[in-house]
Amino acid sequence: MVTWFGRRPQRNEAPRLSARGALQPTEKVDISSLAPGVQHFLGQAAYCELGEFESLARAVATAPNLAVKEGLSAAAGRALSKHHGLITEIRRRGHEPATEMAPFVAGLDEFRQKTSGANWHEPLLSCYLAGGLLDDFFIRLSDGLPRDIGPRVAQLLGEDSGTDVLVHELQTAIENDVALGSRLAMWGRRLVGDTLLVARSAMPAADPGTDRGDGAEARIEPVFTELIAAHTRRMDGLGLTA
Amino acid sequence: MVTWFGRRPQRNEAPRLSARGALQPTEKVDISSLAPGVQHFLGQAAYCELGEFESLARAVATAPNLAVKEGLSAAAGRALSKHHGLITEIRRRGHEPATEMAPFVAGLDEFRQKTSGANWHEPLLSCYLAGGLLDDFFIRLSDGLPRDIGPRVAQLLGEDSGTDVLVHELQTAIENDVALGSRLAMWGRRLVGDTLLVARSAMPAADPGTDRGDGAEARIEPVFTELIAAHTRRMDGLGLTA
Repeated sequence: MVTWFGRRPQRNEAPRLSARGALQPTEKVDISSLAPGVQHFLGQAAYCELGEFESLARAVATAPNLAVKEGLSAAAGRALSKHHGLITEIRRRGHEPATEMAPFVAGLDEFRQKTSGANWHEPLLSCYLAGGLLDDFFIRLSDGLPRDIGPRVAQLLGEDSGTDVLVHELQTAIENDVALGSRLAMWGRRLVGDTLLVARSAMPAADPGTDRGDGAEARIEPVFTELIAAHTRRMDGLGLTA
Repeated sequence: MVTWFGRRPQRNEAPRLSARGALQPTEKVDISSLAPGVQHFLGQAAYCELGEFESLARAVATAPNLAVKEGLSAAAGRALSKHHGLITEIRRRGHEPATEMAPFVAGLDEFRQKTSGANWHEPLLSCYLAGGLLDDFFIRLSDGLPRDIGPRVAQLLGEDSGTDVLVHELQTAIENDVALGSRLAMWGRRLVGDTLLVARSAMPAADPGTDRGDGAEARIEPVFTELIAAHTRRMDGLGLTA
């Protein structure tokens, strides 16, 4: 049961975004008890970043001009670097990356497919919004990882995503085409739902009926409210109504 | 007028390949006078590496299993890192990457399109053979660049390309399917022709009729013989007849 749909974030309680885009909520909700095991976290986050890379690489291949292509290639490189950083953590713990990512392939491939978009701008918006939300989310969730890995992963995922080029490309297009803006606003609203479902699947302990699931909803809700607020700020920044 | 087609490399004069795959000819032919200007070199090599990245990224997206996908993502990362290293050199000299790459887009896009292949194995072979030959070639050509940039570019391009995964995937497939091996051998022979044309286009000074073009053919021939010999060794390593 998904309860966050249709809930508008309280704009006056929106978290401040740091220069690097990481969430800085004024009062932090503790979801560490809902964090998955390290291997689950690393496998899912690594495959998420690989998917983000693939989406950006597809955009590189279809970019309308060389300057945009060049900017997108840098963003693709950042996602790939986050992916490989997580792969390094998996290997450091003596595990096989392919084995650890395998459980998440079907779900995340379906997510990428559903959010891949039909034209030039929709996939760009997907990369920017879904990539941003999932980075925020995994950074948040890394609080619940052991101290010998959590902070390192948070720093890795918090690195600049190089998405300025996406913002610039989308802003320009939206300013020049009102109809495009309203179609992209709808796309963004649909995206956030699908993306939050991915985030939700990263917290198996929060399932009602599990040992730690009781009362989990109450702890999760504020986190999702934070994530949605940051998402709304990204939409606002593009000139889109969330 | 292309004179190297059909010429078989003298196998007993084949250059030794270093562990990192860079060319180490026994007697080095001086082609420095045929090297293009720095901007020409950087723009063309940078767009070449971007194309190699795009081809590898496409392979990542269609990989048959996660282990191969993971290996290919590392190879794509290496090509992208070489590309961005060259972009850094362009910026360091106060130029715009998009402007510098622009003259080479049409030719190199056509090359990528012609060598993109029709199934899973052909594009892999293209990435391995064309990527290897062009890296070898640009390293060789960098001898003619100013000393404050040539050696740095050679080192960058000589970095491990992470193509072990391509070799393994191709070797396994060729061992198990004789018919595939002979189709890929044909593909490899076609590839080398197209790839050498790209290399040739990187030496505008070698055009007959230009000031430096006189006698250029005699200086170029041995270099192409070296490149073809290294190409033949790559083919041999895969179990393909060059």
